[in-house]
Amino acid sequence: MSNKVFIVGAGPGDPELITLKGLKALSKADVVLYDRLIPTELLKYARKAEHIYVGKSPGKHTYSQQEIIKMMIEYYEKGLNVVRLHGGDPFLYGRGFEEVLELRRRGVRYEIIPGVSSIYAVPERFEIPLVLRGVASSIGIATGTEDPSKDRRFVDFKKLAGAVDTIVIVMGSRNIVNIARELIEAGLPENTPVAILRAYLKPEIKILKTLRELIEYPVSVEPPVVIVIGNVVNFTRIVE
Amino acid sequence: MSNKVFIVGAGPGDPELITLKGLKALSKADVVLYDRLIPTELLKYARKAEHIYVGKSPGKHTYSQQEIIKMMIEYYEKGLNVVRLHGGDPFLYGRGFEEVLELRRRGVRYEIIPGVSSIYAVPERFEIPLVLRGVASSIGIATGTEDPSKDRRFVDFKKLAGAVDTIVIVMGSRNIVNIARELIEAGLPENTPVAILRAYLKPEIKILKTLRELIEYPVSVEPPVVIVIGNVVNFTRIVE
Repeated sequence: MSNKVFIVGAGPGDPELITLKGLKALSKADVVLYDRLIPTELLKYARKAEHIYVGKSPGKHTYSQQEIIKMMIEYYEKGLNVVRLHGGDPFLYGRGFEEVLELRRRGVRYEIIPGVSSIYAVPERFEIPLVLRGVASSIGIATGTEDPSKDRRFVDFKKLAGAVDTIVIVMGSRNIVNIARELIEAGLPENTPVAILRAYLKPEIKILKTLRELIEYPVSVEPPVVIVIGNVVNFTRIVE
Repeated sequence: MSNKVFIVGAGPGDPELITLKGLKALSKADVVLYDRLIPTELLKYARKAEHIYVGKSPGKHTYSQQEIIKMMIEYYEKGLNVVRLHGGDPFLYGRGFEEVLELRRRGVRYEIIPGVSSIYAVPERFEIPLVLRGVASSIGIATGTEDPSKDRRFVDFKKLAGAVDTIVIVMGSRNIVNIARELIEAGLPENTPVAILRAYLKPEIKILKTLRELIEYPVSVEPPVVIVIGNVVNFTRIVE
């Protein structure tokens, strides 16, 4: 047997932004376990495969991470090719690496296929670069959501404020006002530009504010969004 | 006319890690302007196109960035489809966005196609995640090379030290010993693991050290490498 588990990044949501290698894995798949936010057009490349939705939708029955791994291993042990399809890149704020650790432990053959991450692809869609000669040479990426099971806050935005030129926050839609406040307290100028972005998924969103405006007129947006903070935001293309 | 300039990310070096969309742009291209470190197998997808090497190789005549942009516009104005093929992603430490700014200014039709960046794809190749639940929830990405035309140092590694869980340095092979020293001075433990990595390009490199070891026994590696600093390095797969 030479079947495998493929841990595949599907990219940011446009079905054409998957890699050729990811596509080939899909075409060999007997089973595809796919996340929420995966463009379902991709499933048609896995013609002969069984498609199993394992995403986490609010209010629906969903599989736990342990159940997902258990399924991956069960199908693999039947001699099947299994594709585990993650949004974006499987290791960047996904659970792909936790799956790899378990596959390793169990001696399962696997292959990791990276994907285009929305961390930079979403800003790019609006023509916002995360670095730019003379403007920004470092990037800080952080999650805006705390782990409820932990006492400590994971990310110290006050320290991040002075340490990097561009800050990118994922899973931050709920906490953006608090984060904006901390960044100002830490010394970032109140007029630092902020972009709240969604791309490749409908509806696309582009909200441009300053840190101060975010605090005074909070906006409420549904996840997922990518939030970019820093002078690079000013380079976005203003159409009409 | 509906020709365009396509600013395309070729991915980290494996020809199968380009996106489907990037491949389609290549197949429509009349001219391809390609960088160093692009897998040349990709050029065969641009069958009918003229292929022009515009990379910067030490000691060879090369095109300046201005000459490259001038060529892009000249070919475009002849009604041709032009692909500008960048390594990795065009906006992440490439010149893609500078090209976009100039195309915008000149009213040129263009399209940006992101690519898988080696910033995370190279660590992934060695099964190093940049974030991991309970281990690392923030990433700092910085260039290790200073701009010789500037007085100020772009990146303050001392501030970065305490601000993020994982540090990734690109273009850092020449300065890694100095950076390691600064990180220790800023309070990072001397035994913080460091990985110096090259993947998808030959020869592949994986050097594992601690910050202290890097200072005491400096290693000399040719670029390009991706350097990862932080506890996530410990999760790399040790084969045999």
